[in-house]
Amino acid sequence: MVTKTVDLRSDTVTKPTEAMRAAMANADVDDDVLGHDPSAFHLETEMARIAGKEAALFVPSGTMGNLISVLVHCEVRGSEVILGNNSHIHIYENGGISTIGGVHPRTVKNNKDGTMDIDLIEAAIRDPHLEICYPTSRLICLENTHANCGGRCLSLEYIDRVGELAKKHGLKLHIDGARIFNASVALGVPLHRLVQAADSVSICLSKGLGAPVGSVIVGSKSFISRAKTLRKTLGGGMRQVGVLCAAAFVALQENVGKLEGDHKKAKILAEGLNKIQGLQVDVASVETNIVYFNILEGANITVPKLCKHLEEHGILVIPDSSSRIRLVIHHQISGSDVQYTLSCIQQAVTGVPEKNGDN
Amino acid sequence: MVTKTVDLRSDTVTKPTEAMRAAMANADVDDDVLGHDPSAFHLETEMARIAGKEAALFVPSGTMGNLISVLVHCEVRGSEVILGNNSHIHIYENGGISTIGGVHPRTVKNNKDGTMDIDLIEAAIRDPHLEICYPTSRLICLENTHANCGGRCLSLEYIDRVGELAKKHGLKLHIDGARIFNASVALGVPLHRLVQAADSVSICLSKGLGAPVGSVIVGSKSFISRAKTLRKTLGGGMRQVGVLCAAAFVALQENVGKLEGDHKKAKILAEGLNKIQGLQVDVASVETNIVYFNILEGANITVPKLCKHLEEHGILVIPDSSSRIRLVIHHQISGSDVQYTLSCIQQAVTGVPEKNGDN
Amino acid sequence: MVTKTVDLRSDTVTKPTEAMRAAMANADVDDDVLGHDPSAFHLETEMARIAGKEAALFVPSGTMGNLISVLVHCEVRGSEVILGNNSHIHIYENGGISTIGGVHPRTVKNNKDGTMDIDLIEAAIRDPHLEICYPTSRLICLENTHANCGGRCLSLEYIDRVGELAKKHGLKLHIDGARIFNASVALGVPLHRLVQAADSVSICLSKGLGAPVGSVIVGSKSFISRAKTLRKTLGGGMRQVGVLCAAAFVALQENVGKLEGDHKKAKILAEGLNKIQGLQVDVASVETNIVYFNILEGANITVPKLCKHLEEHGILVIPDSSSRIRLVIHHQISGSDVQYTLSCIQQAVTGVPEKNGDN
Amino acid sequence: MVTKTVDLRSDTVTKPTEAMRAAMANADVDDDVLGHDPSAFHLETEMARIAGKEAALFVPSGTMGNLISVLVHCEVRGSEVILGNNSHIHIYENGGISTIGGVHPRTVKNNKDGTMDIDLIEAAIRDPHLEICYPTSRLICLENTHANCGGRCLSLEYIDRVGELAKKHGLKLHIDGARIFNASVALGVPLHRLVQAADSVSICLSKGLGAPVGSVIVGSKSFISRAKTLRKTLGGGMRQVGVLCAAAFVALQENVGKLEGDHKKAKILAEGLNKIQGLQVDVASVETNIVYFNILEGANITVPKLCKHLEEHGILVIPDSSSRIRLVIHHQISGSDVQYTLSCIQQAVTGVPEKNGDN
Repeated sequence: MVTKTVDLRSDTVTKPTEAMRAAMANADVDDDVLGHDPSAFHLETEMARIAGKEAALFVPSGTMGNLISVLVHCEVRGSEVILGNNSHIHIYENGGISTIGGVHPRTVKNNKDGTMDIDLIEAAIRDPHLEICYPTSRLICLENTHANCGGRCLSLEYIDRVGELAKKHGLKLHIDGARIFNASVALGVPLHRLVQAADSVSICLSKGLGAPVGSVIVGSKSFISRAKTLRKTLGGGMRQVGVLCAAAFVALQENVGKLEGDHKKAKILAEGLNKIQGLQVDVASVETNIVYFNILEGANITVPKLCKHLEEHGILVIPDSSSRIRLVIHHQISGSDVQYTLSCIQQAVTGVPEKNGDN
Repeated sequence: MVTKTVDLRSDTVTKPTEAMRAAMANADVDDDVLGHDPSAFHLETEMARIAGKEAALFVPSGTMGNLISVLVHCEVRGSEVILGNNSHIHIYENGGISTIGGVHPRTVKNNKDGTMDIDLIEAAIRDPHLEICYPTSRLICLENTHANCGGRCLSLEYIDRVGELAKKHGLKLHIDGARIFNASVALGVPLHRLVQAADSVSICLSKGLGAPVGSVIVGSKSFISRAKTLRKTLGGGMRQVGVLCAAAFVALQENVGKLEGDHKKAKILAEGLNKIQGLQVDVASVETNIVYFNILEGANITVPKLCKHLEEHGILVIPDSSSRIRLVIHHQISGSDVQYTLSCIQQAVTGVPEKNGDN
Repeated sequence: MVTKTVDLRSDTVTKPTEAMRAAMANADVDDDVLGHDPSAFHLETEMARIAGKEAALFVPSGTMGNLISVLVHCEVRGSEVILGNNSHIHIYENGGISTIGGVHPRTVKNNKDGTMDIDLIEAAIRDPHLEICYPTSRLICLENTHANCGGRCLSLEYIDRVGELAKKHGLKLHIDGARIFNASVALGVPLHRLVQAADSVSICLSKGLGAPVGSVIVGSKSFISRAKTLRKTLGGGMRQVGVLCAAAFVALQENVGKLEGDHKKAKILAEGLNKIQGLQVDVASVETNIVYFNILEGANITVPKLCKHLEEHGILVIPDSSSRIRLVIHHQISGSDVQYTLSCIQQAVTGVPEKNGDN
Repeated sequence: MVTKTVDLRSDTVTKPTEAMRAAMANADVDDDVLGHDPSAFHLETEMARIAGKEAALFVPSGTMGNLISVLVHCEVRGSEVILGNNSHIHIYENGGISTIGGVHPRTVKNNKDGTMDIDLIEAAIRDPHLEICYPTSRLICLENTHANCGGRCLSLEYIDRVGELAKKHGLKLHIDGARIFNASVALGVPLHRLVQAADSVSICLSKGLGAPVGSVIVGSKSFISRAKTLRKTLGGGMRQVGVLCAAAFVALQENVGKLEGDHKKAKILAEGLNKIQGLQVDVASVETNIVYFNILEGANITVPKLCKHLEEHGILVIPDSSSRIRLVIHHQISGSDVQYTLSCIQQAVTGVPEKNGDN
């Protein structure tokens, strides 16, 4: 009988903590469309400060944060954005920047570590003088950490170089920072420094930080002013939004400190999986809270069977392909959850229980 | 010294009640993007039931509810929507149906009661056979109650006739029901009957019902399925959204019953204002919770001065034009707030305090 | 037996003259996408000169001319254009400014003479400072002559006043000048003066002027530069386009001088029709080359029957509604064609041949 | 002194022949917007026949042909198209499918021969059942011959396989056939067979075939019907367009037979260039009329210097990068033009005139 659920599908699945629930119950709120909700103001002010930007805006999701950011930087018809061919914006956001925003994407190959080669980015920038048949390059997007590349961190040096490139060509730089706090912690670089080169960052509070709902975008005052209008256009303006912002503020206080622990657990999980016959993990690439593992050819189990087995044991995961599964650690996954997961997987794959696995 | 605020700017300004706050603190939640949050499911099921439709979807705002509805009905490029020239969608939603959705609006004159003449609507429908230079008419939008027309109610008979017209021409009918509960109560027609002719309705829970955040759209299963994808595209998919839905569910239970009282207070306010020398209200047209009053030419006060005077006395209102002010009643406006407001306005306009005005 | 066709459907139906055909056969041409076709250059230079603007661009149609103009002036997402509710752009161009361009139209009622009341235009301009829920007003469009209003001319004084209004509010002014040469001739005002207040004009050469294909847009150098890129985007960049431009140049030389005669014939036609029992024409409103006539209630014929009768006699017309027919004069309609048409209509309507009608 | 120009920039630079000019001068024409121009009808009927499709439509450019085709296949908001990362649509058409059409492009790597690996195409198709965050794959685009890949031909077998893949997944297949006649001739496969698997093809008549202006799109009747409306929306509907169609019809008759000679000249040019010290051509890849040559490192000349030298000798070319130049053969380039070009290049690169080079 399953007595508890170990939800490793994503770090978006966390439940609000007691403190967050109390914050929602006691939030000081006002109409954030007619004026400015005080709890929203409080959160936005703090986020701007932490990110070292002039201003911030709360939005209902990371998808809206990215969409607004790309559209504000590309507000003139005929704009092109340069982004990774494996980036979340390109793959998992419904193509909204084109289908809703009319922005043309120009993809550059993502390396395994989430970077794009600087010279390939530069080659993708359109010559503004020569051709009547080119859209206008206006924006480069990075993603840090890079979800599809296993939560890898873009280094400060890399980001700064891309920022210089953008500046040199008169382009803007946006960072999809859905998990930028994970990157900041893993790299040991303060957030404001890590995003210094960026004109805008979309920062999710409902992933590793565990807030029930919401992201914040940060940038210059004029960027945020235009973002606010666009948020209204998209229907992201909410009334007493302070109830969400108050919970998100607690998330910020409670959980940034826990990310290092998440990363350690992910490493333990990765190392454990890699020891299991028939599985393979690139342990060195597990830099934050995401673990991808491969089922090797010849193994005694398939991805669907393993997923089913785990679900029967209360462990939820997301299959990534016919040979790969993704696991994500968050603050509501304990060390013993990790051991239990390893044990269940070992049993399913090898038929033999892992020796120390107990839950 | 001002001891309390009487906020008459809109019915969107209500603060969450204790019961709503408790509901948020105790909400059963899950990731509503990866799966279906139980509190969202609960609210959506109930709203579908009340509205007599197959399915429902929670969205962060009425603007998003309308935007999604119009875009789903007009998902083929080259679509035209017929709507009132004074409608909220046309005037107050950033033109999003065009600027984000690429839908062409064809406006028909709104009468004072919020209706559009049926024959004018029919004349606006494009002949699908004749012309290569026409967009394709796909949707008619009504608004009930009609905000810019003073909260007037569209009658059941009128809506049914527009529904028949739409069906006859193969068009869909959407109702912007930001305040449809007010209409239902004022007309004495159950909600499901009032919107029976509509293919979709956007229903706001953060206006008269007082929920902190959110609207719900209702329609057929296939409509809601496509709406859900579009909500994700726009960035309206939220994670543990159940915290908002739980509060909204309380709003539904607590406050529908209070709307009748709101309407009575609005009537008292309207009658009181109309008795003040220099002011004029079309009392008969105050059918729900919105009161517009005009400052007559020759009066001793201007709109800006009156607004300033009221603000100094803790009363917040929104000027609508150089001669008109809007007041909106909601469940956090008491009978004595109404009397206090009348008193303050009387004093400002005539220099003489209203006799019974005390607060 | 029908021996000739009198095609009164539109002034777009003219066949190229011998001189135009010779011009096409002898045009000096080059690749107008890689460089600049000499015949295109010649025509564009001349059109810019005549219109008193810095630059000009040949486009395949008036629809593209208007579409490009609106989109260049409204190149930032979230733009709104103010235009007549009866204007060609709004009614007959597939809603392309929204469905392709994402521009939100705000319509103002067209008076019978094609004007919109200046104060209504001003009222439609959004306050840029107040509201987060408004699109941004960027453009006013006029139409001169106004097709749907019977080819009425907007006066110089009116246009100048609208131009001042636009300037005062920081908006641009575009004129749909599909038949601006007709207006210029009828008003006795040189073209460059008539469009002096406009930031852009779309001028058709394949209507009254009789060119086989093409319009020209005129404006500032920077406007035309951006227009050229957008023309390429839309697919309106053509290679040896000089063949069309050479014919259009002939049209310009041959046919401007004939417009006055067209207007006289239209007047004769209007007066003749008005004398026929059962028909009614607002003769005074026939200012240029378009004649609308109404079949009065109680008349012995319907619109479809009359159209059929005329077609059997070689006369082509376009029914405008169930009681109204449109006739358009152009340089290939002779005085005797007009008399023949009157005669045929008289016979069809009254059963009695017009006394002098012969052809 | 330069006595003649050898224009090798593109096959779009050809001047209309005497027969084309005569055809324009004598074309039977009518208003193709109000009805159907007879010369347009004639050309479209013939093109549909040759391509083995139900219907055809004349458009002002290949860019519009591709734009309309992609937009018709992707007429529902939220569509994604799969196309080559080096394709003309993606690189050289202003991103119009996104910026004007709101279609999201998903690029797949083009191999050197213009193909995309079939398994990569299949991997790029979105799973329609699983994910709420995916756009909907609706279309695959091929380009034949592939301009950026040096005019390489896609084989019949390859196209058929992609067609099967598209069908299997319910997607449409569009071929950008700007130079499809070159492919047909080079492969020895009749056009109708070569495009049998395609739902639509855009075929340019103003490239190798030498028509002054125009492309034709072919497909099913319903495809062409919707394409016609969209052509009007974009402003590509032209009045007496028969003057262009008549010239294009002549191009079709005169010049298809000359393409084989063009390809031979291109081969001679390629072989000649490859023999010049310091230059390099992949001769085997010159399958049609396009020749790219590289200036090797250490050569005594740079791309800009060589271009300048050639221009001074009346030879026009387009630099493709800092080390590569493109030359395109068309029916107005003679064998002696090829020899003259080789001679001039040899002289510029080696300082020694080619022995047989004379012009």
